[in-house]
Amino acid sequence: MAKRSTPRPAARVAPDDAFLDRHLPYLFGHASYVMNKDFDARAKAAGLAPVEWRVLASLYDDEGLTIGELARKVVARQPTLTKAIKRMHEAGLVRREDDATDLRKTRVYQTRRGRTLALRLIEVAKAHEAQLLQWLTPGEITALKRTLQEILGRERSPLPDDHEIVMKDA
Amino acid sequence: MAKRSTPRPAARVAPDDAFLDRHLPYLFGHASYVMNKDFDARAKAAGLAPVEWRVLASLYDDEGLTIGELARKVVARQPTLTKAIKRMHEAGLVRREDDATDLRKTRVYQTRRGRTLALRLIEVAKAHEAQLLQWLTPGEITALKRTLQEILGRERSPLPDDHEIVMKDA
Repeated sequence: MAKRSTPRPAARVAPDDAFLDRHLPYLFGHASYVMNKDFDARAKAAGLAPVEWRVLASLYDDEGLTIGELARKVVARQPTLTKAIKRMHEAGLVRREDDATDLRKTRVYQTRRGRTLALRLIEVAKAHEAQLLQWLTPGEITALKRTLQEILGRERSPLPDDHEIVMKDA
Repeated sequence: MAKRSTPRPAARVAPDDAFLDRHLPYLFGHASYVMNKDFDARAKAAGLAPVEWRVLASLYDDEGLTIGELARKVVARQPTLTKAIKRMHEAGLVRREDDATDLRKTRVYQTRRGRTLALRLIEVAKAHEAQLLQWLTPGEITALKRTLQEILGRERSPLPDDHEIVMKDA
């Protein structure tokens, strides 16, 4: 993938035996990076870290989620998420309410300001997605979404508190 | 995706209008997490951070990569990568050599110890991948790989030094 500008030793492994470029978990990680990086810069310009953008988009779809539900949805550890929600609360984007029937649970809601920002960023995100998908046929896109939903639908295990997020930079 | 154990307000958005669960960049990020997390725990048990595992696997395929080539391959910023390679050098997994024709460049090679560890972890990684793909048909897997390679093949821009990695936990 990298361009080579200087002579270099031959690869040790023959192309047909190369591992990483056909390893789906790696391809997914790399594709995830490619598909998210430009938009993440836009969200950052709007004052949102990547996890905060995912919280905002989750609450646009489905208000009143608990911290645990949000953690699974945005793929973050609870301590990280709790800090993100605190920042978003201070920025006037979300409000928190005790659950009506279970006082141990807090539910998170969008404010009007949060919803306005969500609507604006979702339009930007959709435009980014369209740009990324311009080289795929509609059939390929449909198949891709179905396959991804299949992979995610099989995943039912909760997110452990101490789990590192993939592609975390360390 | 989350199970709900208590009564809660209706979602604000009708299922057909939901954004996040059909947004490909999000689905990719989530699938990437699901596909990598169990293996990352195995690599960690072997003493490797996720980026170090990707370096090891890259060098297995293609020895003598420069830092810049490795940064694109493993999707990491150069300062992060430089630190990772320093750690791996101290652990006896890689060695560094000046490029034969361009002394400004350093090339990174596997040691015998690094190659032994790479071979062991690649077997584990392949087993993990097979487990993840058991619900997909061979045709779906082929189509998926082709689509991912298409997305990555279009991506030619270099990785800026200050760029955040997607799904980084902040």
